[in-house]
Amino acid sequence: MIKSISWTGNSLRIIDQTEIPAKLVFLDLNSSRDVYTAIQKLSVRGAPAIGVAAAFGLFLGLRDGHFSDIDSFYAALNDEIAFLKSARPTAVNLAWALEYIRDTLLQHDLSPSEAIEKTGLMAQAILKDDEERCEKMGTLGAGLIEDGARILTHCNTGALATAGIGTALGAIYKAHQHGKKVHVYVDETRPLLQGARLTMWELKQAGIPATLITDNMAAYAMQQNMIDLAIVGADRIAANGDVANKIGTYSVAVNCDYHNIPFYVAAPESTFDVSVSSGTGIPIEQRNPGEVSRIWNRVTVTVDDAQCWNPAFDITPAALIAGIITENEILRPPFLSAIENTIKKNPLSLKLEGV
Amino acid sequence: MIKSISWTGNSLRIIDQTEIPAKLVFLDLNSSRDVYTAIQKLSVRGAPAIGVAAAFGLFLGLRDGHFSDIDSFYAALNDEIAFLKSARPTAVNLAWALEYIRDTLLQHDLSPSEAIEKTGLMAQAILKDDEERCEKMGTLGAGLIEDGARILTHCNTGALATAGIGTALGAIYKAHQHGKKVHVYVDETRPLLQGARLTMWELKQAGIPATLITDNMAAYAMQQNMIDLAIVGADRIAANGDVANKIGTYSVAVNCDYHNIPFYVAAPESTFDVSVSSGTGIPIEQRNPGEVSRIWNRVTVTVDDAQCWNPAFDITPAALIAGIITENEILRPPFLSAIENTIKKNPLSLKLEGV
Repeated sequence: MIKSISWTGNSLRIIDQTEIPAKLVFLDLNSSRDVYTAIQKLSVRGAPAIGVAAAFGLFLGLRDGHFSDIDSFYAALNDEIAFLKSARPTAVNLAWALEYIRDTLLQHDLSPSEAIEKTGLMAQAILKDDEERCEKMGTLGAGLIEDGARILTHCNTGALATAGIGTALGAIYKAHQHGKKVHVYVDETRPLLQGARLTMWELKQAGIPATLITDNMAAYAMQQNMIDLAIVGADRIAANGDVANKIGTYSVAVNCDYHNIPFYVAAPESTFDVSVSSGTGIPIEQRNPGEVSRIWNRVTVTVDDAQCWNPAFDITPAALIAGIITENEILRPPFLSAIENTIKKNPLSLKLEGV
Repeated sequence: MIKSISWTGNSLRIIDQTEIPAKLVFLDLNSSRDVYTAIQKLSVRGAPAIGVAAAFGLFLGLRDGHFSDIDSFYAALNDEIAFLKSARPTAVNLAWALEYIRDTLLQHDLSPSEAIEKTGLMAQAILKDDEERCEKMGTLGAGLIEDGARILTHCNTGALATAGIGTALGAIYKAHQHGKKVHVYVDETRPLLQGARLTMWELKQAGIPATLITDNMAAYAMQQNMIDLAIVGADRIAANGDVANKIGTYSVAVNCDYHNIPFYVAAPESTFDVSVSSGTGIPIEQRNPGEVSRIWNRVTVTVDDAQCWNPAFDITPAALIAGIITENEILRPPFLSAIENTIKKNPLSLKLEGV
């Protein structure tokens, strides 16, 4: 499985996802500004992956600092966190990773140089932790996939979206590894075509049979009895189980509901944001209208100066979701209590060996 | 209003819709093969427009023939009809126009040269008739559109899809002419982007405010209370009211149902095919997978040799449809009896002055 994000010892190496599948280009990110730009331009994307990238961005932004005392370190850290958080507003993993590092540092009495070192080690721990959570999520999710299953997915939720094997796509990888025959129907996922470009690329490398469809074909595929279940990822999950995910997810969920097809969400517990009671509290990123009027930044497909709407995410209400697959369990409705319980049982903490 | 299809006296002049909005190119079609190719390549498209084009294609295929007797004329006519019908299978208007001409000719005792002349006159009458039916459909449909309405539409159903002002878009043009403020949300309509390319182009020329969205945003727009009603066209309507229309229409209808938004279909009565009892009897054209893997034939957006599914149409069951706007009335459920009655009341016949 390809590593989309890794630490070279000196820089953060990522696959530039804006170029796939035409070219496989690696970028070495050397500063927090590099990381900010890579997140904003979607060179690195996927909620867990941008959490990992942001953690390294924080380290890269602090490692060359000369801090007279720990207060000036924390002042710089807070500035870097605010800067990196502003790269994208919807995925909560980004904020989670940064705040987790700050909260952990604050529990220790550290010198500035110790704090810098610990920030770097924690970024590495967050990367490794994401890999492990993907493995567990994949294994649990694979249990929902029967031999012969025809699975609809939306956007990209695989190795390119995480530091590991992925979330929703991780479950499909695990089912395939377990010897189950699966066939994946891949929504192309306009406007940025993460399904056509990234998921099809990953599935081809993995040798898993896949059929590309335009987003508007999913309903008809369901009507024609071509889909057994749908699995998608999540960028933020509210306390009640409402899910923010890539634009178009909600349409898939409504159509699954109409056709009595189970609709699953796979996401690590860092995706839960219980400070938000429902989906209406989740900020939805509005991106450049040019992403709609142009395709893959290569060809303009409408009139000049077309007014375009470009919400990058939508909200799927909990009522449409059959289950949420985390690294610890498969949550079932009612999600309000299920989420509360799982977070209580499994406090988020990294295995920080030597940190 | 631009004329997308007109008779020059010697050839059929069409706008090449594959080039819009980048270029406005007219093509002069001089033979039935020219017409066949233009229909198959979608240089001319839209159910009513291809009906008109096919009628002229029949004339162009016969006008230079030397027929020793009327039987040899009808043999050639049947060959041409079979050839032209094979250009695209789903829209019934194409078959309707050709068969209407044959049936009318057969009611008269004609010489071969009279039959050729009459075929040309009938093609012109079908064009004029389509213009008039569009006007009436538009006026009736406009009655469903309130001042301030926010209207979702899919694909292109305007002047480019007909010989007149259009079907669904015709209703929007008429509402605008009547002084109603409207705002149109335009599904881009992958794979061939008829919404982004053609509908946005028409609405810009008409000065009607429009916002382009990707198809997968429609559900979220409905959830955000941005849509008051949806109007689409049709390529074939079965006896029970099931509607074949551009792929993605069904998803719009399911989402309208979920959000209690009325979903209307606008189509001339030549779109009814009562020989087909329900949507399952309507053939769905499968087109080249390259239309999915490439965009506007200009940029490849997925891996090499990606398997793609490319049904050009889908079926919306009658149960999801609030009303069918024809040139004569607005049909309401139950559609089985409504369609039967309207066809009885309004036998399809052209005003063939001098024919």
